[in-house]
Amino acid sequence: MIYFDNSATTAINPLVLRTYTDVATKIMGNPSSLHNLGTTATRLLEASRRQVADLFGLTAQEIFFTSGGTEGDNWILKGVAFEKRPYGNHLIVSSVEHPAVKNAAEWLTTQGFELDYAPVDHKGFVIVSELKKLIRDETILVSVMAVNNEVGAVQPIAEIAALLRDYPTISFHVDAVQAIGKIAVEDWLVERVDFATFSAHKFHGPRGLGFAIVRAGKRVTPLLHGGGQESNRRSTTENLAGIVATAKALRLALEDDERKRSKVLAMKQIIFDELKKHDKVVLFSEMADFAPNILTFGIRGVRGEVVVHAFEQHEIYISTTSACSSKKNAAAGTLVAMNVSGKIATSAVRISLDASNNMAEVEQFLTVFRQIYQELEKVSG
Amino acid sequence: MIYFDNSATTAINPLVLRTYTDVATKIMGNPSSLHNLGTTATRLLEASRRQVADLFGLTAQEIFFTSGGTEGDNWILKGVAFEKRPYGNHLIVSSVEHPAVKNAAEWLTTQGFELDYAPVDHKGFVIVSELKKLIRDETILVSVMAVNNEVGAVQPIAEIAALLRDYPTISFHVDAVQAIGKIAVEDWLVERVDFATFSAHKFHGPRGLGFAIVRAGKRVTPLLHGGGQESNRRSTTENLAGIVATAKALRLALEDDERKRSKVLAMKQIIFDELKKHDKVVLFSEMADFAPNILTFGIRGVRGEVVVHAFEQHEIYISTTSACSSKKNAAAGTLVAMNVSGKIATSAVRISLDASNNMAEVEQFLTVFRQIYQELEKVSG
Repeated sequence: MIYFDNSATTAINPLVLRTYTDVATKIMGNPSSLHNLGTTATRLLEASRRQVADLFGLTAQEIFFTSGGTEGDNWILKGVAFEKRPYGNHLIVSSVEHPAVKNAAEWLTTQGFELDYAPVDHKGFVIVSELKKLIRDETILVSVMAVNNEVGAVQPIAEIAALLRDYPTISFHVDAVQAIGKIAVEDWLVERVDFATFSAHKFHGPRGLGFAIVRAGKRVTPLLHGGGQESNRRSTTENLAGIVATAKALRLALEDDERKRSKVLAMKQIIFDELKKHDKVVLFSEMADFAPNILTFGIRGVRGEVVVHAFEQHEIYISTTSACSSKKNAAAGTLVAMNVSGKIATSAVRISLDASNNMAEVEQFLTVFRQIYQELEKVSG
Repeated sequence: MIYFDNSATTAINPLVLRTYTDVATKIMGNPSSLHNLGTTATRLLEASRRQVADLFGLTAQEIFFTSGGTEGDNWILKGVAFEKRPYGNHLIVSSVEHPAVKNAAEWLTTQGFELDYAPVDHKGFVIVSELKKLIRDETILVSVMAVNNEVGAVQPIAEIAALLRDYPTISFHVDAVQAIGKIAVEDWLVERVDFATFSAHKFHGPRGLGFAIVRAGKRVTPLLHGGGQESNRRSTTENLAGIVATAKALRLALEDDERKRSKVLAMKQIIFDELKKHDKVVLFSEMADFAPNILTFGIRGVRGEVVVHAFEQHEIYISTTSACSSKKNAAAGTLVAMNVSGKIATSAVRISLDASNNMAEVEQFLTVFRQIYQELEKVSG
């Protein structure tokens, strides 16, 4: 089996899973409990929070554990909107955001908020000058992802941050779900970023876990009200085993990450160079300014799902862009925003690599690709 | 160690943990993926959903997996409120609800909703005739828990359901977090209940997992917008290992549950009878109409935390009522609602038993209790 669908989900690292089972077996207290079982649990929880904070050069008070990227995005989008409603009701999100951001923002429009989408160019990059034009006095939030999940475009976060320095009252949220290990932290976690959100299963951590960065002093209404956990900002009994495992997965993901990125980039380059040679291949991802792990392409005239299933016959797993939209049989939102015509957009498939992949897999992938291409070339007309 | 704090959290069942690790290791697909790794994941996900549904005599379409009780309560409270706002803006929750319900409802009052608390009698039971008086034309939701977490009062859900049959447009939500295995399902999952919410770690399942019952045809706005999972009602990549483990934990919890309840009740009875003999003991829980596992009491003039720490010296773990309020040093909300005076309320401690406890532990608990009582009796004045 060759798994090239790592942007959909990654396999949990066995060391991370062992941490999960160790904590689940040995630490049974509820961190909110007064007795020493609770204290032991609290100590471990706070050590994990510090570990995550240290990896980003932040303080522990800026890290909040969540159930994943979707919760994080919903929390920040809705939480900032409700928190800042007295000051304005206008939101800007990029036109290539994940549905967790887009659909949360769309829902807010049913609650009296106004929403504008910042357009992207034909490669999928947010056009900062266009984003600037959308800013008004009522704007309270700008949300732009670090790495696009469908084509891998690395968004100009630093440039947007520089723009937003002139608008200190606007909150800036970065969905960093696809960023961990793929681009350097300092490339997107710049000072002007107020909020960022993460999902553990995208970097070999457990499912159902994630965290959010909420910079010191930044206010956000809770999505989960209740018992007051996470400094009263995200209530629910803490998933301690999952949290400790998440911190470990993050540490492992960021360990030696430059080398891992180079390895992944080299694999992408080989696939990219080979695909380019085929007339009917349309490339939606490039090398420079794109994530090293994501390569989205199409075979003209062949629906993406046909290509996915053709590879599947050879036990090679790729996807029709994002997992979240793949079953809906719709063109990828990012490609639509890039102004790719509908017919070409529906041909798109995404390869998403990981440092655990290797060159032998790349070679086999390309062998199979050539075979599939030849077969499909005939039927594509 | 004697663990009598099972209402705060339970130890994960080793069989459930093994299921978690098996699934996490072997099934790596994202259920949303188009390829057969995704299909395998989806099949397992839907089998778990069916298993949960079958245990309640419901259809699979009525089960939605969540990250726990707090998310479930927030989802249903806020989701019903936003969904039904065109029809009314008035909510009724009991005065002894968990903070996840109370604080979600309180937040809704900042969004234009009106909230009334249905009072309880001096034992902690919702007074149905008083609840009835609070109903108005604008009432859209009534939320009452099945089993109170702080004193164990089993709420008159069937009676409230009977009342609400006359008000078919009011949604009825039951927080069933403390109910699984403690009272028979048919005692509270009556036909008129539209929504119910659950937490897996309360019945030896994993942390960070839960589910909600949403009866067929009942509408509720999502709390988590995004990729469209869970029939577009609760987006986020599914925590498959956790979900399969949760279904298994539920099956095990409901297996032979009458016998387990009798065992727990017998242990509670022995403790109850012994405590009653002590002049300075105030009992906040009774036997009839209370959960078989919860026994809340106080030693007059002694703060609950002093008692908790005294037991802790003997490696016996109990709590100052709910874990969620224990660190706040505040009297239990339920006792305040029961009109217990402040001084007596702050004496409260909660024993919460489980079928995994045994009579030897009960005997040892009572030996230690007598010793502690004698010591504290002197200082309590």
